[in-house]
Amino acid sequence: MKKAYFDHIAATPLHPEALQAMLPYLGEVYGNPQSLHSAGQQALAAVESAREEVAGLIGAASEEIFFVSSGSEANNFAIRGLAQAYQAKGKHIVVSAIEHQSVLNPVKSLEKLGFSSTSVAVDGAGRVDPGDVEKALRKDTILASVMTANSEVGTIEPVAEIARICRSRSVLFHTDAVAAAGSLPLDVRALGADALSLAGDQFYGPKGAAALFLKKGTRILPLIEGGIQEGGRRAGTENVAGIVGLGKAAAIAKSEMEARTARLRPFRDLLIEELPRRVEHVVLTGHRTDRLPHHASFCVEFIEGEGMLLFLDMQGISVSSGSACTSKALKASHVLLAMGLDHALAQGSLVFSLIDGTGPEAIDHLFEVFPPVVERLRKMSPLYTQHLKERTP
Amino acid sequence: MKKAYFDHIAATPLHPEALQAMLPYLGEVYGNPQSLHSAGQQALAAVESAREEVAGLIGAASEEIFFVSSGSEANNFAIRGLAQAYQAKGKHIVVSAIEHQSVLNPVKSLEKLGFSSTSVAVDGAGRVDPGDVEKALRKDTILASVMTANSEVGTIEPVAEIARICRSRSVLFHTDAVAAAGSLPLDVRALGADALSLAGDQFYGPKGAAALFLKKGTRILPLIEGGIQEGGRRAGTENVAGIVGLGKAAAIAKSEMEARTARLRPFRDLLIEELPRRVEHVVLTGHRTDRLPHHASFCVEFIEGEGMLLFLDMQGISVSSGSACTSKALKASHVLLAMGLDHALAQGSLVFSLIDGTGPEAIDHLFEVFPPVVERLRKMSPLYTQHLKERTP
Repeated sequence: MKKAYFDHIAATPLHPEALQAMLPYLGEVYGNPQSLHSAGQQALAAVESAREEVAGLIGAASEEIFFVSSGSEANNFAIRGLAQAYQAKGKHIVVSAIEHQSVLNPVKSLEKLGFSSTSVAVDGAGRVDPGDVEKALRKDTILASVMTANSEVGTIEPVAEIARICRSRSVLFHTDAVAAAGSLPLDVRALGADALSLAGDQFYGPKGAAALFLKKGTRILPLIEGGIQEGGRRAGTENVAGIVGLGKAAAIAKSEMEARTARLRPFRDLLIEELPRRVEHVVLTGHRTDRLPHHASFCVEFIEGEGMLLFLDMQGISVSSGSACTSKALKASHVLLAMGLDHALAQGSLVFSLIDGTGPEAIDHLFEVFPPVVERLRKMSPLYTQHLKERTP
Repeated sequence: MKKAYFDHIAATPLHPEALQAMLPYLGEVYGNPQSLHSAGQQALAAVESAREEVAGLIGAASEEIFFVSSGSEANNFAIRGLAQAYQAKGKHIVVSAIEHQSVLNPVKSLEKLGFSSTSVAVDGAGRVDPGDVEKALRKDTILASVMTANSEVGTIEPVAEIARICRSRSVLFHTDAVAAAGSLPLDVRALGADALSLAGDQFYGPKGAAALFLKKGTRILPLIEGGIQEGGRRAGTENVAGIVGLGKAAAIAKSEMEARTARLRPFRDLLIEELPRRVEHVVLTGHRTDRLPHHASFCVEFIEGEGMLLFLDMQGISVSSGSACTSKALKASHVLLAMGLDHALAQGSLVFSLIDGTGPEAIDHLFEVFPPVVERLRKMSPLYTQHLKERTP
């Protein structure tokens, strides 16, 4: 069976060079980076070199990079840690309505501790209006968090403008760049972010290694307390091999990003143009142009994303019907609902996210397989039957 | 140069079979376990099989195992998560004085949220008296945490007895078994623990993969919130390869533990017997017999552990002067102070912890190198000069 993987947003394959870089740390170099002997110092040197590579990807200084285990941990760490470190200044937080659950849920938990929050709406393309963020800021606002790009609909947010507004009001700005880092050029200085989350498994690094950028001088409370790892800000023996793989992936992403984008963007644009043309009632979700270069997302009317996903899988095609983090929850995406899609349409969500190496054969295979899958599912759909009846004069 | 690694407590090498088991998940099987397509389901199957293996090591059911990124995370998760889930019942926590910082620090943080705690003292061998735990329990105590064995002094704690007392008083019992799991036979049912932390890098698994056992029916608040991973109790894309390595290491530990112990215990006993005999003013720390089978720890009078560690390292010998998590803090260990050692003696802490494969050559090398290192450092020690003067009639 032909195979085609269109699920970058759930996980990317590990780059072979990242694996090669990791192997010594899964072998002979097994010391603990906190040990003072040379076995430990060798591991520490690898961790610190990876820190520089990750810093290099986003224009940060290496001492501003804190290694964690996932993008979700980075988001939890940022939201809870910053809010708690600055609560003497105020207890109000601003987030966009389409943030990942690993931003939204910690905010909800903070509300139980006396914090309050404002959710900023998005337009039909999933864009946050910086003016809306400005209006949401209050005297007691200490933190705003708006993602760099949304993984479900691909839309890129105007974070530099939002960061500028936050800075002018002395509000800390965090951006969840998990979907964006490695795929979009990011510079934390140009962006003006105080904190930024990224995860290696979104740019051909290993799962289990991610980082929080924290601007020098910014205070934060640890999420995981204990030892003195990561400058006392994140306890726990370092995942040395994972961190090394993340570092290598960051270095590769930095040098390859432009070429990768040039390879993938034409396929993305082809999907955006062709799928709605080839299949009736297929609607693009997210912004048409200001979107991740590897990301094409749609809602397919009258059927559920889940069903399409499983039928496509039987044909060797891996796609997502939204965030992998909530895929089994079978709820309509809060992102699509925030964009004003109705509940039924939001159920038909499909995300095609391309990994490097995707070629025309994969796209052709999809074009061949997708229309009959949709047709087959529509035949079983009462909603579609209803629609046809109503259309008949 | 001859090499000898005596720092099991900081990190163990990865078992080659664990690495072999991991490699497919650092290669072709790169799906996200939460994805519904087969690429994801293949990864999920590996995670679930590892969950069974980890459960098998401690006599748990697989649905009682929650994967996390380190022993420290497991401890933070247990302490904060249980305390917050049961705070309606009471807000008092009991811990021993020699717990790891990843237990003690979260307790301190909870105190800022209105919790209070009692620290139970230990005897000169680092043992907690179960009767003291009983006395520390109050009507509003909801949680007690006492480690299974201490990594700095090797002492095994009477946790089954403590768990029995807690159960009889309807107090949840958590044990930090990070130093013990994989080295001591553990059965959560016989132990009667409600929660137990373990980490793969303590038994030849990879760094970055650990687990919290949580008895079925026990409520807990997540430390990392967001997606639905780990039954909604720990968000973040799973570190699939790390988890697979942890599972494999657990399976190997289960079948090899007895043989490993039989191999290492004689060397441990040799160190305990010989080092104080061969070098003046070397005192065993921890319990002489009720201790980890791979663990021999000492205080060397008149000199600092740090210095010995670095001089031994120059001779190819890796040892620890305490917990790697605090090694650079250069503070006397809270564990040794709690055992009643004076501050000066506690500074001379050295831990020899053996990894499997340690042979007589490594021990011989140590016996050859250690006495001159101590002699050399003592010559430079003002405390020792003072001691000699006082001894001279």
